[in-house]
Amino acid sequence: MLELLFAEIAKEVELTAADKALVQAAITPRKLRKRQYLMQHGEHFGEIAFVNKGMLRACLKGEKGAEHVMQFAPEGTWIPDSFNLSEDDTALYDIDALENAEVLLIDREVFQQLLQRVPALEKYFRQVMQKRLNALHLRVINYLTHFAEDKYKMFVETYPEIVQRVPQHMIASYLGIKPETLSRNRKKMATRKKEEPEL
Amino acid sequence: MLELLFAEIAKEVELTAADKALVQAAITPRKLRKRQYLMQHGEHFGEIAFVNKGMLRACLKGEKGAEHVMQFAPEGTWIPDSFNLSEDDTALYDIDALENAEVLLIDREVFQQLLQRVPALEKYFRQVMQKRLNALHLRVINYLTHFAEDKYKMFVETYPEIVQRVPQHMIASYLGIKPETLSRNRKKMATRKKEEPEL
Repeated sequence: MLELLFAEIAKEVELTAADKALVQAAITPRKLRKRQYLMQHGEHFGEIAFVNKGMLRACLKGEKGAEHVMQFAPEGTWIPDSFNLSEDDTALYDIDALENAEVLLIDREVFQQLLQRVPALEKYFRQVMQKRLNALHLRVINYLTHFAEDKYKMFVETYPEIVQRVPQHMIASYLGIKPETLSRNRKKMATRKKEEPEL
Repeated sequence: MLELLFAEIAKEVELTAADKALVQAAITPRKLRKRQYLMQHGEHFGEIAFVNKGMLRACLKGEKGAEHVMQFAPEGTWIPDSFNLSEDDTALYDIDALENAEVLLIDREVFQQLLQRVPALEKYFRQVMQKRLNALHLRVINYLTHFAEDKYKMFVETYPEIVQRVPQHMIASYLGIKPETLSRNRKKMATRKKEEPEL
């Protein structure tokens, strides 16, 4: 069950058999059906989840009940990527499954204990967070500097697999643009591709 | 010279005298005059900077030459907060000093060596990055879900000291709203304060 997690960790640090046993003991697996919630906004939820199968989404409600996608989390990633492990563990988001999924949960306090017992994991999580920081920076840059068409193009280039797996209106919500605008941009991009001479 | 840095690290982890000597050896201090660049977009810049005195800003050029503020970094913080320490160390931003400043620089490769020699720092940087991830999340939430007035209000509440120290047009740029809109919102907020009965 933990093959994928251990493979991800092994990219950064080496764990001993004893370390792996401690990781295993810290984890609670859970299966989710498509559309099932892992947590809902306002709930007490002091855990982080490693996506072992399927895809999850973090979403928040804006003004006038609008839904905003904060994160798509395919297998091999952590959600929420804010690693919001503060004392106040009231969930900011809704997190639900976009496909039938399996997650490995670690409780906030257990997480802190695990890091003390397996210091190598500090490095692994520092690396994971560094990558997420870079990704979030690019996202802020995308908001600040680009027009709708470029936003979509950048998303397609950065997350080609996610584009195939989630509905377009969710990508529009993630990018903070209107679904109609996204649809227009997709058509434009498709037309341009056709017009470009093959090399 | 390293009192502030060691005080920040001591909030998270304990360093031995030998550890501190290794940190000191890894650091290159530099003074910057107000308006001086630490780095410019496109330059080779493989370092991170701890702000020891003053305030720095990371900025990027958008379409039509518009400037977008990515980060304000007062003393006690790291810049860029993306910790962009990838192999490709071409700077994405301009970083300049908003006040006369002093920074402590660590080179990317030296940084990796330092983490190997002083593993306690993995924990310190993991914590720093976790806090920045939370801050960046709130920023994305702010873009996605709020109107201009709330954006400014949230900024004031989150960074009360920065509001006092940087010009309004830079805050507008950071928030991705027009300076005129910001100015209108400040007036509204001031009027409301006056109208609220004192309790």
